[in-house]
Amino acid sequence: MKNRAAYMTGLNKMEIREIPVPTIKEKEVLVKLEYVGICGSDVHYFHDGRCGDFVVEGEFILGHECAGTVVEIGPEVKNLSVGDKVALEPGITCGHCEFCKTGRYNLCPDVQFLATPPVQGCYENYIAFPENMCFKLPENMSTKEGALVEPLAVGLHAAAQGKIGLGDQVIILGAGCIGLMTLLSCKASGAADITVVDVVPKRLEYAKKLGATRVLNGKEVNVVAEIEKLTKGAGIEKVFETAGSPVTIAQTPHLVKNGGTIILVGLAAEPEIKFDFGKIMAKEARIESVFRYRNIYPKAIAAIADGIIDISGIVTHEFDFDNIQEAFECAINDKDNVVKAVIKITE
Amino acid sequence: MKNRAAYMTGLNKMEIREIPVPTIKEKEVLVKLEYVGICGSDVHYFHDGRCGDFVVEGEFILGHECAGTVVEIGPEVKNLSVGDKVALEPGITCGHCEFCKTGRYNLCPDVQFLATPPVQGCYENYIAFPENMCFKLPENMSTKEGALVEPLAVGLHAAAQGKIGLGDQVIILGAGCIGLMTLLSCKASGAADITVVDVVPKRLEYAKKLGATRVLNGKEVNVVAEIEKLTKGAGIEKVFETAGSPVTIAQTPHLVKNGGTIILVGLAAEPEIKFDFGKIMAKEARIESVFRYRNIYPKAIAAIADGIIDISGIVTHEFDFDNIQEAFECAINDKDNVVKAVIKITE
Amino acid sequence: MKNRAAYMTGLNKMEIREIPVPTIKEKEVLVKLEYVGICGSDVHYFHDGRCGDFVVEGEFILGHECAGTVVEIGPEVKNLSVGDKVALEPGITCGHCEFCKTGRYNLCPDVQFLATPPVQGCYENYIAFPENMCFKLPENMSTKEGALVEPLAVGLHAAAQGKIGLGDQVIILGAGCIGLMTLLSCKASGAADITVVDVVPKRLEYAKKLGATRVLNGKEVNVVAEIEKLTKGAGIEKVFETAGSPVTIAQTPHLVKNGGTIILVGLAAEPEIKFDFGKIMAKEARIESVFRYRNIYPKAIAAIADGIIDISGIVTHEFDFDNIQEAFECAINDKDNVVKAVIKITE
Amino acid sequence: MKNRAAYMTGLNKMEIREIPVPTIKEKEVLVKLEYVGICGSDVHYFHDGRCGDFVVEGEFILGHECAGTVVEIGPEVKNLSVGDKVALEPGITCGHCEFCKTGRYNLCPDVQFLATPPVQGCYENYIAFPENMCFKLPENMSTKEGALVEPLAVGLHAAAQGKIGLGDQVIILGAGCIGLMTLLSCKASGAADITVVDVVPKRLEYAKKLGATRVLNGKEVNVVAEIEKLTKGAGIEKVFETAGSPVTIAQTPHLVKNGGTIILVGLAAEPEIKFDFGKIMAKEARIESVFRYRNIYPKAIAAIADGIIDISGIVTHEFDFDNIQEAFECAINDKDNVVKAVIKITE
Repeated sequence: MKNRAAYMTGLNKMEIREIPVPTIKEKEVLVKLEYVGICGSDVHYFHDGRCGDFVVEGEFILGHECAGTVVEIGPEVKNLSVGDKVALEPGITCGHCEFCKTGRYNLCPDVQFLATPPVQGCYENYIAFPENMCFKLPENMSTKEGALVEPLAVGLHAAAQGKIGLGDQVIILGAGCIGLMTLLSCKASGAADITVVDVVPKRLEYAKKLGATRVLNGKEVNVVAEIEKLTKGAGIEKVFETAGSPVTIAQTPHLVKNGGTIILVGLAAEPEIKFDFGKIMAKEARIESVFRYRNIYPKAIAAIADGIIDISGIVTHEFDFDNIQEAFECAINDKDNVVKAVIKITE
Repeated sequence: MKNRAAYMTGLNKMEIREIPVPTIKEKEVLVKLEYVGICGSDVHYFHDGRCGDFVVEGEFILGHECAGTVVEIGPEVKNLSVGDKVALEPGITCGHCEFCKTGRYNLCPDVQFLATPPVQGCYENYIAFPENMCFKLPENMSTKEGALVEPLAVGLHAAAQGKIGLGDQVIILGAGCIGLMTLLSCKASGAADITVVDVVPKRLEYAKKLGATRVLNGKEVNVVAEIEKLTKGAGIEKVFETAGSPVTIAQTPHLVKNGGTIILVGLAAEPEIKFDFGKIMAKEARIESVFRYRNIYPKAIAAIADGIIDISGIVTHEFDFDNIQEAFECAINDKDNVVKAVIKITE
Repeated sequence: MKNRAAYMTGLNKMEIREIPVPTIKEKEVLVKLEYVGICGSDVHYFHDGRCGDFVVEGEFILGHECAGTVVEIGPEVKNLSVGDKVALEPGITCGHCEFCKTGRYNLCPDVQFLATPPVQGCYENYIAFPENMCFKLPENMSTKEGALVEPLAVGLHAAAQGKIGLGDQVIILGAGCIGLMTLLSCKASGAADITVVDVVPKRLEYAKKLGATRVLNGKEVNVVAEIEKLTKGAGIEKVFETAGSPVTIAQTPHLVKNGGTIILVGLAAEPEIKFDFGKIMAKEARIESVFRYRNIYPKAIAAIADGIIDISGIVTHEFDFDNIQEAFECAINDKDNVVKAVIKITE
Repeated sequence: MKNRAAYMTGLNKMEIREIPVPTIKEKEVLVKLEYVGICGSDVHYFHDGRCGDFVVEGEFILGHECAGTVVEIGPEVKNLSVGDKVALEPGITCGHCEFCKTGRYNLCPDVQFLATPPVQGCYENYIAFPENMCFKLPENMSTKEGALVEPLAVGLHAAAQGKIGLGDQVIILGAGCIGLMTLLSCKASGAADITVVDVVPKRLEYAKKLGATRVLNGKEVNVVAEIEKLTKGAGIEKVFETAGSPVTIAQTPHLVKNGGTIILVGLAAEPEIKFDFGKIMAKEARIESVFRYRNIYPKAIAAIADGIIDISGIVTHEFDFDNIQEAFECAINDKDNVVKAVIKITE
């Protein structure tokens, strides 16, 4: 067994090095990773050295969307066996704080989240991980699909925060990877009429292919006016904001229906966004937000395995481990075409 | 315009007579009915003269699952036009009692529900109905599908009471029409693993065809033991009881998972059913029940029109209006084969 | 029976005139009003000719917080009798739109709300009103308390939107009438630690008297820093904004706890308020808003009658009907001291 | 430091013995216990050797309702200090199973619950306990009150399962300790009209003293008929069953209002209770159940400290540690008079 890891050694620089194979603790398993996706946050760290408030210091391993095969189990592991394919939920939480106890473990202040500094990520061959964060994949699911459970989980949590159910009408602002994951999640939860908005034609094409009822190009039409016309002035019950831009965030009060819900999914980077709260109040609308996800891996896996969600269509690019530098450069330079790139981890 | 209605003139006797075309009020529309389904309750009234606490007295028009085309509108009708295809929600409520005000109008004590004595039903050509209970069908939906919205609404309300969402594991006891509607509703709401139980092989075939993950014949296997094996002793999160039998109701505490929900859909006719409440408490399970439905027609129609639910497969028998006596006899004598019979209303 | 009404005949001008006693319809009762409160919106109309998007045109009767005694009942009235004391819920809704049907009748687009132009208000002796919007007061409740049910209902709806329950920690920004009603509502719903913030010392005194755990003067201390210290950096689970000012609204993301809820109660008049949505997302906080109230009168009356809420302490000023001009001038000129002024309606 | 524990050495036999002072682990604290209550389950074990499915084997320490003072802290303890008064939540859960992760840790299959065989209880001087299950009591709260947090937690969880809120109407069947705790919890959560039913006059007296709006003696009146009269046939929205008897459980469908909730709190020992499910369905009622509690200690402590709940009135009997045999005999022989007995732990 040889373990190699891709280190970010500086801005825009990645280098693969040999590292020791980790030793597992009693309740851990050793996973031989097979696929690790590239997330927007990975690209931010790589290119800017930071993402939100988190800053990369020193050499750092990126990567947190991953799946592989169990090759060794600790003595207290009960439900996994060597040979099991697993998807890893990348945030290890304390299990005992107020947030963990109330089932909102994504808010645990002591979370150890892969590739969120200072916690190292998983562009590597082997990782030791707690059994209870490794979710077994059924026979008919590949580890490539397994690596996509993580970004899908964000979309599913968004749909859950928005309480999407059968027959719902939905609009999604932004058709990047997370916007498209939200689209898949809403469809799988029964939404019946889904409008997707973006300014990049290629992305709108993807949205259409993945099941959007209609797409709008925000550069070509006045989105608020279009929705007003479409809904005869009523607005849309569930409005997802996945672009994180001040412009689209500011549109949401004008798109939402009386009593409806706005779900904030895309990170709002600017600290002072202008917003019409009076409109929100006159409509008695609600604003929900999304921070990662919780309690969603088993359901996501069940949905993929059962054919409810076809996740494979989301991968547009695949790279070998040795080409990880090229993969990141592609994700930066060709970002309108890259919905999701994955790294195939090889020895 | 000639109006004819099928009167139940005694037990097991139906007779078609000419009646006046009704006059519409200001907020009503006149609907030319095209399809009216036969519900289990219609059959009960026809065969036994009663259903639950409701008793047929005198001559009575049955039928409440219906759709047709608007042929006249009252002066204050705002959202419907002549020529619109519509499905009728058959319970007219007061709009102002405590239950109506809190959105639970299905519990309105003053509800006027078609074909629930003493309110006459709609096996007839023309009906005057409040605009707000007539739901417009989109172009791509037929009135035959429209007539099926009513029984589907029961299944959808059951799924809603059970808070079915993406990736849920479900068991449905009973594969009669309502059991199958519950199956369709759970699938459309994202359920990923659905076991259906019945004792009639034909019905289990239908269940399999309509998307059950697996079916169990309760005569051939010990259902509780099978589920224990399947779930490694954990039980199933959402247990739907649609058979209404003391035997299946008594099984539910043994099938449900810790913290899970039992949803009672099938009418429990016997007033004293033996039940293990201690088991319920040790599991902290919840029991929800279903009385008709509420606020579900628009979502049901959106789901059918959008292709999320294929309702057409549920109709196994179709009869002409003039053969309504034969239709009811078939529903009684061949009940294992009849999932849903509909009457095509002709002049 | 002589009926008089106070007309606003121009900005800051009120004039009492004789008008006909109204005739009741079948399901209506005639109420002899005894107390009508002065709401902030009444003062806005009186002084500015408008409130939010609503503009007074022509002569107009203000007033909507009212209670009195039934003096006549329509032939179809079932639950009220002559002599009953009643509080009137001032918004008459359609009962049949999508919002009414789902129990959110406060969002009914066809609501007729007293003293919201063009619907006349109730500074008058007699009003004809639908039985189902008149709530009977028990023996031990006065019509003066009855007139206070309306503003209390806003606080109670705010507490309900915030899902306030036993042991909750709460902060309320703003200690005007609605802020204090929110305080009373939170306390009655079991909140155990309530901080109230304002910049007017007199109002903070009232808050303290009505049960605030502690008060903060926003002019004297840095509220965000104080709360950070108090909660050891955790923030507060439920943050009520009742001031409607851009400054306090912008504070809320910094006050709220991870996973907590901000409840917007005070009307945000400015259409572009700067807000840190990134903070909201990092905390996965929720924002709820409040538009009037729904389904709350019976519970409010039960709570007052049962002694759970002592509403009487909220009235700081009482005026005779003939002094209504003076009452409004006092509400404007002495607003820091006026928590709630009521008009005693006399013939 | 000398540690003594009361061992149940056989049916109805208790014996105090010296045992070693336990050693604490890194995240544990050593608590010098001051008060430990006697729970109904303790009495069952003592008298019958079992409670529900749990059987005492060999010598066993009872007791789980406890509070004391921290006398030593482990090296990784962060939020507690020597000298802190604490109440102990007696169920240590795994923190990582499906139930723990979703915030329903009371359903954790690996829970270690004090005095539930084979886990020893805490009628003893010293106990080592995880910091995160020890809840600090504020200055103004005694450890006697602290020991009562546990039984109160059951009542509070019952009120939470029933979603009790401001102005609710409630009936509580059974006025034993848990019935009275439910009463206190409902009142503190805003319930405005509370009927308590029992067959023991003394208990009804307690109920009246602790705030019941009215009490009914089930031996003297027909409870169902009385409630029908009281509510004009409507029934009561929230029905708590705390007696656990087949008779009272069977009454609940007849007491509950349309759309209301039955909350099962009292352990239903008999495995086959006759129940009218048809009535439940016609009313679309819901049945919730209660298994211990979760996430409630901090709120319970806040409520007691804030004066929202006066818990002290619940203690009717206090015994010295050396008289523990007598205490249990009293709890058995004088059970109608004993609401809650506590043991004062002395060295």
